[in-house]
Amino acid sequence: MCGQSIEKLLESLRDGNISVTDALQKIKALPFEDLGFAKIDHHRGIRQGYPEVIYGESKTPEQIVCITQKLLEKENNILITRASEKAYEAVLTVAPDARYNAMGRTITIEKELLSKPSSYIAIVAAGTSDLYVVEEAYETALILGNDVRKIVDVGVAGIHRLFAHLEMIQKAKVVIVIAGMEGALASVIGGLVDKPVIAVPTSVGYGASFGGVAALLSMLNSCASGVSVVNIDNGFGAAYNASIINHL
Amino acid sequence: MCGQSIEKLLESLRDGNISVTDALQKIKALPFEDLGFAKIDHHRGIRQGYPEVIYGESKTPEQIVCITQKLLEKENNILITRASEKAYEAVLTVAPDARYNAMGRTITIEKELLSKPSSYIAIVAAGTSDLYVVEEAYETALILGNDVRKIVDVGVAGIHRLFAHLEMIQKAKVVIVIAGMEGALASVIGGLVDKPVIAVPTSVGYGASFGGVAALLSMLNSCASGVSVVNIDNGFGAAYNASIINHL
Amino acid sequence: MCGQSIEKLLESLRDGNISVTDALQKIKALPFEDLGFAKIDHHRGIRQGYPEVIYGESKTPEQIVCITQKLLEKENNILITRASEKAYEAVLTVAPDARYNAMGRTITIEKELLSKPSSYIAIVAAGTSDLYVVEEAYETALILGNDVRKIVDVGVAGIHRLFAHLEMIQKAKVVIVIAGMEGALASVIGGLVDKPVIAVPTSVGYGASFGGVAALLSMLNSCASGVSVVNIDNGFGAAYNASIINHL
Amino acid sequence: MCGQSIEKLLESLRDGNISVTDALQKIKALPFEDLGFAKIDHHRGIRQGYPEVIYGESKTPEQIVCITQKLLEKENNILITRASEKAYEAVLTVAPDARYNAMGRTITIEKELLSKPSSYIAIVAAGTSDLYVVEEAYETALILGNDVRKIVDVGVAGIHRLFAHLEMIQKAKVVIVIAGMEGALASVIGGLVDKPVIAVPTSVGYGASFGGVAALLSMLNSCASGVSVVNIDNGFGAAYNASIINHL
Amino acid sequence: MCGQSIEKLLESLRDGNISVTDALQKIKALPFEDLGFAKIDHHRGIRQGYPEVIYGESKTPEQIVCITQKLLEKENNILITRASEKAYEAVLTVAPDARYNAMGRTITIEKELLSKPSSYIAIVAAGTSDLYVVEEAYETALILGNDVRKIVDVGVAGIHRLFAHLEMIQKAKVVIVIAGMEGALASVIGGLVDKPVIAVPTSVGYGASFGGVAALLSMLNSCASGVSVVNIDNGFGAAYNASIINHL
Amino acid sequence: MCGQSIEKLLESLRDGNISVTDALQKIKALPFEDLGFAKIDHHRGIRQGYPEVIYGESKTPEQIVCITQKLLEKENNILITRASEKAYEAVLTVAPDARYNAMGRTITIEKELLSKPSSYIAIVAAGTSDLYVVEEAYETALILGNDVRKIVDVGVAGIHRLFAHLEMIQKAKVVIVIAGMEGALASVIGGLVDKPVIAVPTSVGYGASFGGVAALLSMLNSCASGVSVVNIDNGFGAAYNASIINHL
Amino acid sequence: MCGQSIEKLLESLRDGNISVTDALQKIKALPFEDLGFAKIDHHRGIRQGYPEVIYGESKTPEQIVCITQKLLEKENNILITRASEKAYEAVLTVAPDARYNAMGRTITIEKELLSKPSSYIAIVAAGTSDLYVVEEAYETALILGNDVRKIVDVGVAGIHRLFAHLEMIQKAKVVIVIAGMEGALASVIGGLVDKPVIAVPTSVGYGASFGGVAALLSMLNSCASGVSVVNIDNGFGAAYNASIINHL
Amino acid sequence: MCGQSIEKLLESLRDGNISVTDALQKIKALPFEDLGFAKIDHHRGIRQGYPEVIYGESKTPEQIVCITQKLLEKENNILITRASEKAYEAVLTVAPDARYNAMGRTITIEKELLSKPSSYIAIVAAGTSDLYVVEEAYETALILGNDVRKIVDVGVAGIHRLFAHLEMIQKAKVVIVIAGMEGALASVIGGLVDKPVIAVPTSVGYGASFGGVAALLSMLNSCASGVSVVNIDNGFGAAYNASIINHL
Repeated sequence: MCGQSIEKLLESLRDGNISVTDALQKIKALPFEDLGFAKIDHHRGIRQGYPEVIYGESKTPEQIVCITQKLLEKENNILITRASEKAYEAVLTVAPDARYNAMGRTITIEKELLSKPSSYIAIVAAGTSDLYVVEEAYETALILGNDVRKIVDVGVAGIHRLFAHLEMIQKAKVVIVIAGMEGALASVIGGLVDKPVIAVPTSVGYGASFGGVAALLSMLNSCASGVSVVNIDNGFGAAYNASIINHL
Repeated sequence: MCGQSIEKLLESLRDGNISVTDALQKIKALPFEDLGFAKIDHHRGIRQGYPEVIYGESKTPEQIVCITQKLLEKENNILITRASEKAYEAVLTVAPDARYNAMGRTITIEKELLSKPSSYIAIVAAGTSDLYVVEEAYETALILGNDVRKIVDVGVAGIHRLFAHLEMIQKAKVVIVIAGMEGALASVIGGLVDKPVIAVPTSVGYGASFGGVAALLSMLNSCASGVSVVNIDNGFGAAYNASIINHL
Repeated sequence: MCGQSIEKLLESLRDGNISVTDALQKIKALPFEDLGFAKIDHHRGIRQGYPEVIYGESKTPEQIVCITQKLLEKENNILITRASEKAYEAVLTVAPDARYNAMGRTITIEKELLSKPSSYIAIVAAGTSDLYVVEEAYETALILGNDVRKIVDVGVAGIHRLFAHLEMIQKAKVVIVIAGMEGALASVIGGLVDKPVIAVPTSVGYGASFGGVAALLSMLNSCASGVSVVNIDNGFGAAYNASIINHL
Repeated sequence: MCGQSIEKLLESLRDGNISVTDALQKIKALPFEDLGFAKIDHHRGIRQGYPEVIYGESKTPEQIVCITQKLLEKENNILITRASEKAYEAVLTVAPDARYNAMGRTITIEKELLSKPSSYIAIVAAGTSDLYVVEEAYETALILGNDVRKIVDVGVAGIHRLFAHLEMIQKAKVVIVIAGMEGALASVIGGLVDKPVIAVPTSVGYGASFGGVAALLSMLNSCASGVSVVNIDNGFGAAYNASIINHL
Repeated sequence: MCGQSIEKLLESLRDGNISVTDALQKIKALPFEDLGFAKIDHHRGIRQGYPEVIYGESKTPEQIVCITQKLLEKENNILITRASEKAYEAVLTVAPDARYNAMGRTITIEKELLSKPSSYIAIVAAGTSDLYVVEEAYETALILGNDVRKIVDVGVAGIHRLFAHLEMIQKAKVVIVIAGMEGALASVIGGLVDKPVIAVPTSVGYGASFGGVAALLSMLNSCASGVSVVNIDNGFGAAYNASIINHL
Repeated sequence: MCGQSIEKLLESLRDGNISVTDALQKIKALPFEDLGFAKIDHHRGIRQGYPEVIYGESKTPEQIVCITQKLLEKENNILITRASEKAYEAVLTVAPDARYNAMGRTITIEKELLSKPSSYIAIVAAGTSDLYVVEEAYETALILGNDVRKIVDVGVAGIHRLFAHLEMIQKAKVVIVIAGMEGALASVIGGLVDKPVIAVPTSVGYGASFGGVAALLSMLNSCASGVSVVNIDNGFGAAYNASIINHL
Repeated sequence: MCGQSIEKLLESLRDGNISVTDALQKIKALPFEDLGFAKIDHHRGIRQGYPEVIYGESKTPEQIVCITQKLLEKENNILITRASEKAYEAVLTVAPDARYNAMGRTITIEKELLSKPSSYIAIVAAGTSDLYVVEEAYETALILGNDVRKIVDVGVAGIHRLFAHLEMIQKAKVVIVIAGMEGALASVIGGLVDKPVIAVPTSVGYGASFGGVAALLSMLNSCASGVSVVNIDNGFGAAYNASIINHL
Repeated sequence: MCGQSIEKLLESLRDGNISVTDALQKIKALPFEDLGFAKIDHHRGIRQGYPEVIYGESKTPEQIVCITQKLLEKENNILITRASEKAYEAVLTVAPDARYNAMGRTITIEKELLSKPSSYIAIVAAGTSDLYVVEEAYETALILGNDVRKIVDVGVAGIHRLFAHLEMIQKAKVVIVIAGMEGALASVIGGLVDKPVIAVPTSVGYGASFGGVAALLSMLNSCASGVSVVNIDNGFGAAYNASIINHL
């Protein structure tokens, strides 16, 4: 499929396998310009120094495969976020070495390993329920060429567990803090390190967590000074941001 | 004035100081039954074992004085919350021993000291900006007959300061935690003590703190299990609640 | 499974059942440190005097079984909240005496009965639709070692039904009030008892109940003084809190 | 001025008191058609059987006087809501028998008393802080020709006070319930009477009352069946509605 | 089942069909007092003069059948709202003459027809998408003993269609206006009739309709004076209210 | 079926195929006046110069077919929005030449082509995820008689792609801008063209996009002056509006 | 002042009226580049064919005068919105022929009259309280070169008043509808005209109008198809938009 | 005063200048422990490498002076944010070389200049109305030891102005983007640079900007990947964060 449908349709017409009336009707039925539904920007990889990223959420497996195929013609690494297992299976047909992180819902296709800085990114998460965001951030940071340390289940309700990992967190060049519910972990860590802290609220919780709004507001109002925030569940954005900083 | 106006008006009429027409007109102009504007409940003090409380916010100094006068006929202690300095000056005319806490905006009139339990209430606050709530809670707890310990300016961004006071907090029978901005202090303390924690969000902050909503949501979503919450800035309610628990 | 996978994988490698290449690939595919996905804290039971609690909502049955197995090595009682029937069936394979409360969605594993105080907790609910929260609170209070009395379907629209149970409510050491829709029950009971009242808004309702927000706001603004509030549908938190108070 | 300004301006021009240039400039400076800024509808009084009502909130005293003067040419009674004391003083210059209710912020000009039905409207309010809405409703109901009974300060936190007035409430033809904070009174009364209950949330409260939203949501979600709701602080609308019902 | 389970269990025990151990275990597994899960109030029918109403939303078909069976012992009519087809099928087993309105999701069991007033209720709806609320209101009004006229699809975007039915609307004793999206119909009708108007916002719409909030706010802010509002989609509440008024 | 059921029922009765009792029971069971459930307005096409439009969202395939059949008796073109594939299959049975746009979820039945103005409408969209709205707008604009140019995937994060199409956008008579997430495209284009810009926020995004609210607010606050906004995902409304302007 | 301060400061220094130390200190104290605080864009007038517009809200009278002075060097007309009377008095010192519309809070400086199209813009407003927005829209439309007709106080609660002006509204090329409270006027007019309708919600109202949100949501959800919306109180934006359309 | 009041009071008592009764009364009147109202943390400067910061918003000039005096004993630079002019005048009495930025509302006391990295921070702002946040960020970045470049009034509605400064923005090590209204500038710049972008929403705007919420949501949903966000109007936090990055 993948953008060849008009071409193939016209070939079918030329080869006599389809009538003009039918071809016309099919062309009229196409919902949008077939080749043009995603203006792929091969220059972005060069300009920004990073792999190609596909946001998989609202795309069908077919659309993801088509975009992937286009990108495979280039030498960039590829990261597909918010990808379902079905999308992964579809991608395997065109990229057999694609790797799937089921928890993080990411597909990665690594053509060449990027060189990594000697410093590392710390990803700290409050609870095991936040792991789906941890893994999205982790895979993103990896494919962008970074060393990453994960410290999970160190929520503030048991603060001694956090202190057990404090040195590893303080030695990172940049820290990603991932927390749902009340999101207090960002403030506590922000007060303990002198590195940039990127906070990711997660939609973990219920009732008055309002799908992550409680944690988002908590992090935006952090009393610790070095904390900035990305969208709810946006592990990708946090890692992208952290990677820029780690490569400075 | 204080509810005598109809009576005095009628006396004036009887004494010939005012005409019937004028009296009638004045009576018609009264906005509501003069004596009836606050059905004072003398039995509540007995039933619930606590002093009389007047919520001063939306009342004029005159109204506050009138209610105070009525209550002074009884032997109850009196607490007036959200009281302006003008209200205090007005109350002094009928209760010269009334005491004003300017920071907490409370007026207290203590007729007899209530006996106190041997246990105490700890009031812990994140920042000096939260002091207006701390003081309201403090005065409330005092007049309800409690020993109180205040620990202020121990926000989570400098968590070592909190640990310096941990023993005093852990030995309390009940802990009130007061915090604005992201309200993370409630979760941290909730994880460190095994006593009931009553959290009070404050309206301290700006922007996405939305007048205390960020702290409120944070506290409602606390990952620590023993935390319950009262309304934004409701230092009175938290102390009332804590006092009930301290007297169990 | 349960955290032994790396170990077993390495054993398979040692025993020649798997090639180095395959082992490497499998290890790389692991989304997070297998043993480390939940840093179980055996000391918490000692420090806080309570059983271990697992929040089941965002965990797979497999994860729940793994954590349960770890905890069973200790002598603590176990409470799993927000547990599906599938999780219960899975838990039964490692803890055959586990008990499921389908309405409250709790699994309890009782190794030894905790001693109970002579006082009791009253759980009062507005309607039969609130029972899923009542039961979560009930099971939580039981396993934490408390006598509990349940009074259900006594909403304020038929207030004579409430009065029929007033004595039992007033004699409790602490009262949990559970209500959805407008949540008025908390204020009414708060005015009738002189004990701490912990209010739980439920997500029962539709339209402008906004998933429990109407009841939550109602309870936070209660005109009765001794009311504190926990998160929407948080029967567990209310009972945990009430249990702390009941054991004071 | 009151709509005569263009005319007088032109007279001044004709009489040589002002130059054409000045007149032109003044006319150009007029913000809108002077006579047309309020299309007064003399037929409404006939069609709907009620006095003329002016919503005073966003109008200057001058505008209010102008509209009043127009209306005085007719025989209707006049009710001005949300009127400041300055507006009242201004109105007195054209209607010396106008009456002001300072608490309710209403001005009433009664030309002829409307006949009243034998049934009455009960206005029940939770606290003395709600009196500003009570009085707006009261004055509205009066001038629309109704007998009214007011029962104030019977909030649900002291429910025995409500029961003392229950018979008077139950015998009304229609009940207006006015409450701020958590607004629980509407549900309690709705469960005790078999008459239409019109609930008015008030903006009394602070913090999570959100200017009356908590009470509004509470009333919309009332578990009692016969309750309908008007806008926050809309004492006028409730009384207008109740008056229609009382005249059925 | 229906509340006999404990009794039957004990009978089984007495008759030797079950062991003491098993019986004990089963009793312990019961989530709540079996007989007590809904305190049915037979007196409400008498006190308020209306049939029994069951809110079906959060109840299982089994629970609905049990409550229905209890109520059938009395002579009241029965209305079950928010009832699924499965619930209807279940109810048919105990009440073969039960009637289902699939659009309105109501089950009605009519034992005796209530006498109707000579006046009628008009139900006016903006669009065909609002019919699910229209039918709930219609069935409610019928079983409460009222004549009802329905006027549907007369939204304000084609206002001439509304005018074609104006006389029928104006002659009603009380008017229910049902509208989603922007809910403007309530204001337009409120300006055209001198009868009480009860407005029901519906959750029809998308995007910034926020599940009926847009219509709800629109109706609460109606510039027409005689409009009061019930909860989103609450056709039952509107009809209950209208019926009270129609019987005055 | 389609509105003939009462008639056919009566015919069946007349022809003796059904008893009076059964007929009566069936008639009573009808949820609403069968013929009257949608007052189809044949004059609207004439008055407003546009085809008939059916909003398909909350209608069953059967209802859609019935309304379509009625409309087919007239010579208007027909547009059905928010139509499922099932609805399309049902419509095909009565209109075999109906065309379905699966992405835009529209069914169009074109009886005669409307004459088009020489000017055109530009539809500009930020990302491929917004295509479902693009297509709804596209089909709407087509059937209303307009030339349309689509420019897709030109979001502001790669602004050079937008500039490549600037001339085509600037030469349109009216521009529709469709964007989700932060909706910044509307402001950028609003600053680059001197034509009316109609902005459509889409529900594309997650977390703090709140189903399109972020884009909606962004567009309402556009710093560019010529931008107006329609509801979230309302491609139809934007195109309808643009078509009016394109035909001026 | 106006951006000459650095220059004058340096002149003073050159002329020996100030020491180097003092000059340095003063320069360092300047909060931002003096000349650069507003990059005035003289090309915009040419590119977009419209006068220069200054948004006065958050600017001091001094800043407004400075920008005005700069703009006066060019031949453009000038419109200043959200201007206080103080700003007007300040502007008069540099532009004596500036005109102030106190109701609309606009200052206009007209250097040359723009040619007007023969068609006109209709501005329709629900109530006299909305006049402040009407006048802002009116002045904006005037200075952009348009004939304008104003129809005020035709809210939907008295819909016969609207019909009296229907012909004038229907003959406009574009209609601006301004309404607060429930904003229903936009839908009613949208259903009566076949021209583009630009709706402006106003912040008129109280309580659940939430500063114009109720009207905004109402207009965004309009059931009439040709309605688009601008920000609350944005009379300027609506008129700017309408002017673009009127000049097409 | 400044924390010496108890001490001085006791000295006065010792010296016989005050009676015991008076001293006691004064001590009892103190609202909180005088010395303890702000636990100043001298170690923070060392630990985090930055000057002392005082958040001035909710503090009285007296409190600010007291804290300043304490801090002056150390050698740290001092930054006071959200400081009124009155606070500045008060601070001048203890720190004559304090400098005030009236636009940014900051007071800075510079004891020694920190060494600066060779890289710089770019502060980019959409409009002149955002300058109050620009200046807060600017002063913060300066005192933390950074070179800063300001580019103001480059909003997206006139995007050519932004491009004129693109090189300077792209060469920065970190970029702060400050914008109100729709906040689109963050996304546009995020797509043009490969450096970390810290976005600051401002409360500039009206109506549906909701005090900066529109810009906040816009920035959180940015389609550009390297953007993180701080609280509304939080220029300090953005600069603090940027300074950490600039010093990496």
